[in-house]
Parts: sequence; structure tokens; C-alpha cells
Amino acid sequence: MPGELSKAREALIKSLYTRHGRKKSGLCLCEGRRCCGEVLAACPDLIEFAVCREELAGEYPDAITVPDFKFSVLGVTETSQGILLVARKPEPLPEDSPMLDPFALVLDRVGDPGNFGTILRTAKAAGLRELWYTDGSADPFGDKTIRAAMSAQFTMNLRRFADLAALKNFLLKNGVERFFRTDPHEGESCFAARGLYERSAVIIGSEAHGVSELGGAVPVTIPMPGNFESLNAAQAATIFIFEYVRRTLTP
Amino acid sequence: MPGELSKAREALIKSLYTRHGRKKSGLCLCEGRRCCGEVLAACPDLIEFAVCREELAGEYPDAITVPDFKFSVLGVTETSQGILLVARKPEPLPEDSPMLDPFALVLDRVGDPGNFGTILRTAKAAGLRELWYTDGSADPFGDKTIRAAMSAQFTMNLRRFADLAALKNFLLKNGVERFFRTDPHEGESCFAARGLYERSAVIIGSEAHGVSELGGAVPVTIPMPGNFESLNAAQAATIFIFEYVRRTLTP
Repeated sequence: MPGELSKAREALIKSLYTRHGRKKSGLCLCEGRRCCGEVLAACPDLIEFAVCREELAGEYPDAITVPDFKFSVLGVTETSQGILLVARKPEPLPEDSPMLDPFALVLDRVGDPGNFGTILRTAKAAGLRELWYTDGSADPFGDKTIRAAMSAQFTMNLRRFADLAALKNFLLKNGVERFFRTDPHEGESCFAARGLYERSAVIIGSEAHGVSELGGAVPVTIPMPGNFESLNAAQAATIFIFEYVRRTLTP
Repeated sequence: MPGELSKAREALIKSLYTRHGRKKSGLCLCEGRRCCGEVLAACPDLIEFAVCREELAGEYPDAITVPDFKFSVLGVTETSQGILLVARKPEPLPEDSPMLDPFALVLDRVGDPGNFGTILRTAKAAGLRELWYTDGSADPFGDKTIRAAMSAQFTMNLRRFADLAALKNFLLKNGVERFFRTDPHEGESCFAARGLYERSAVIIGSEAHGVSELGGAVPVTIPMPGNFESLNAAQAATIFIFEYVRRTLTP
């Protein structure tokens, strides 16, 4: 029997909307049917407890049920759709474990949780198994990041580094030879560059700052015939990720 | 001399955050340096008036300046960055004017303003000149849509239809022969389908409902080796838009 929602658990849920609260508890918050459904299916052992609105009790028999008015003050988003989960973060693979993908998709200080999460979701859809990122990026287990990623962070391996220099150092030891920094204006076209996805790293920068300085990194660009602004970071990443899929599938 | 911000103009700005307010006045609201900069550069004649924080008065000499505390209650977003514009919507081309692009990029009830705007921005970057959409989509001139689009709606031609049947009817008369509906699961790969961008329409559906029923529409899909969820609508549109760019540039 799931029982009632204690004051302590209610306070815990609220704390998980803050980075500090997630750090302190080591837990995170998933909201909505699709996000929660993914965690329930892929890693139910990580779930500490679930809370749902009374009318969904039949659908989520292990969840604590609360009246509607109570639920609506728990979730901050309109999209919570009557179900939320409090879960432990999955353990990343040991630091020295070998790379899982043919290339490393790297996010350098992509601070917007929506962008970070959307890129995770897109990378997982493309069949990538890892995402590499530097400090200054959004919290991969923030509530907004989880919503945008449709909980992809629970089943992908995340590798965090202080900066690009540390990340490059690690990748060099793993046989990665080419470092590509995506640039809105400069470099060879992503549709033509050779070796883009072979023992390489493809680095996406933040919208505000682009990719950090990194010695030896080769610029690569998305051709923009419309010559309008730069693309949103998540759109740029999506083009690079699915150019990889296209190359993989095209004989 | 720009003068002071009248009560009437202050009320007008607030009303422009609502669909009703935009409809009543025929005006819309741009916020932030990049969004406003685009309108200032591309269509200054559409601007009714501009408002900025006192410290930006040197940068925007024609703007009405207001103290910081006042500005922060005008803009609803943290991203307004001290400058906002009230502008008329550009006149769309006459209804019977011919298509401007080799294919029609169609949004069918894409209701999320962030997605709608991001797709506009991406389409403009790719060199497209038009976007076609059906009722039930986000307001192209909503404040969120404008922010996500970086004001691309001011320089692209927008064509609105009640539904896909009406849109198809119109396109048939304009020599469009092929109608592709994007589908997360079914159809030929977008990387292989022939004639995808030649006298055709590529229809993107909403995340919640997909593409509406349309007789004779051929499904086309983005291959997803990761077999995870569907992609976000803006990511799917981005892949289709830049596959067009790739084909155009690849001999």
C-alpha cells in the first residue's frame, strides 16, 4: 500500500526543483506521463516513490495518491499531467570505461536546460549511448532537463569534465584523433567534412559563447543559405546528430 | 524626442502578451537585443514605438527610456534585456501570389510557440522564404513565438489555412504534386525519399496529434536507430529543413 504523502516527502519534492536540493539528496524529479513512463519501464529500481492524482490511481497502483488541489501545488508545471516520480540518479559508468560510441558528442557549457534536454533526447533517438559535457552546462538531472529529454538521461551514460582541455586529454588517451568545434560561420560544411564521426569529438557550444578555446580543434559549420542569425544550439546539435545517422545508413 | 511612456502605451504593451490584445490592436511585441535588432534592421517602418532601460538610451536613441524598476514590470521575461518594440505585423503577400520556394514547408497545428518560432528561425536560416500553417497552430506573432524565431516572421511570408484540405487544394492549383506527411514510425526515410523537395509539400504535425488525415499524403520518416520516443516537433522539422539544404548543396 502506497500510503499518504508525508510532510517530509512533500518538502523533498519541492526541494528537487532547486540544484541545491538535488545535490543534497542525490535525487531528482520526473513529471508527466511520458517522462515517468520511460523511467518506470527502463529503470524502476531507481524510483524512491511516485505521486499521482486520485483519478490516476488505477493506472499507477504503486503511487501515493493525493487530491487534485494538492497535486497542483506540488508540480510547478502545467505539464506534470497528474504523475510525478522521485528517483535516484543512475550511476555513470566508471570513469576509465572505454567510449561507447564511434564519436563523442560534446556539449560545452550549454546552459539552457531545454536545449540540453532536447539534445539528450535527440541523441538517444539517434542511437548514441553517451553524452559528454563540461561544467557550466545545465544540470542533466534538473526537472526541466528531464522533461525536455523525456528521461533519456536515465539510460544514457553522461560524462562530465571541468573543461574542454580535461575532456580532450581524456579522449586522446582513448584513441580519439580529431576534435571538431562547431562554428556558425567558419569551417568546412558538416555535410562534406570527412572523418567527422570516426574516432572524433564533435563539440557544440552555448548560444551565448560558442565553443571554448581548444588547441587543435578544427572548425566545422552548418551551411546557412538564408544567412540569418545562428541556429539555436539544440537545432545545430540535431543537424550534426542526424548527419551521423544519415551517413551510417547511406551506403 | 521620444518622450515619456504614457499609461495607454504601458497598457498596450501588457495587452500584447495576450492573443486577444494582439488581435484587437493588430500589433505585436518584440523583446531583447537580437529580436529587436532584426526588426530595426529589416523593417524599421513597422515599428510603432520602442522602450528601453535608461542605461541603453545611447544605443537606442529613438526609444522611450524608462527607469530599470519600471522596465522590469513591463517585460514578462528575463530575456527582454532592456529593450522592447511594439510593431505592426507585416502584410503577407496576396493570397493568390505564386509559391516562393521549391517546396512548401507546412506546420499542421504545431501549437507550442517555442517550437513554431524555432522552426521559423531554422527555415529562414536555411534560405526558405515562406512557411505554411493551419489553424490550431501557435500565433506566429505571439511574444514567445517571436523570441524563439529571432523575429524571422517579419521577413518571411506566412500562409495560413483552415486545415490541410484547404491547403492542399490551394497547392494543387499551384502545381504541387506530392504531399508528404512526416511520421515517427512509418514511411520511406527522409534521407532516401525522392522528390521530397520538388513541387511538394512537407507537412510537420504537432507532437500530441501528429499530422491530420489528408487523402493521398505519403508518409516519410526520420530513421531513429535508438528507437526512443518520437523527436520533438522542432527537431523533426530541423532535420527535414536541413536535408533540403544538404541536397541543394550536394552535387
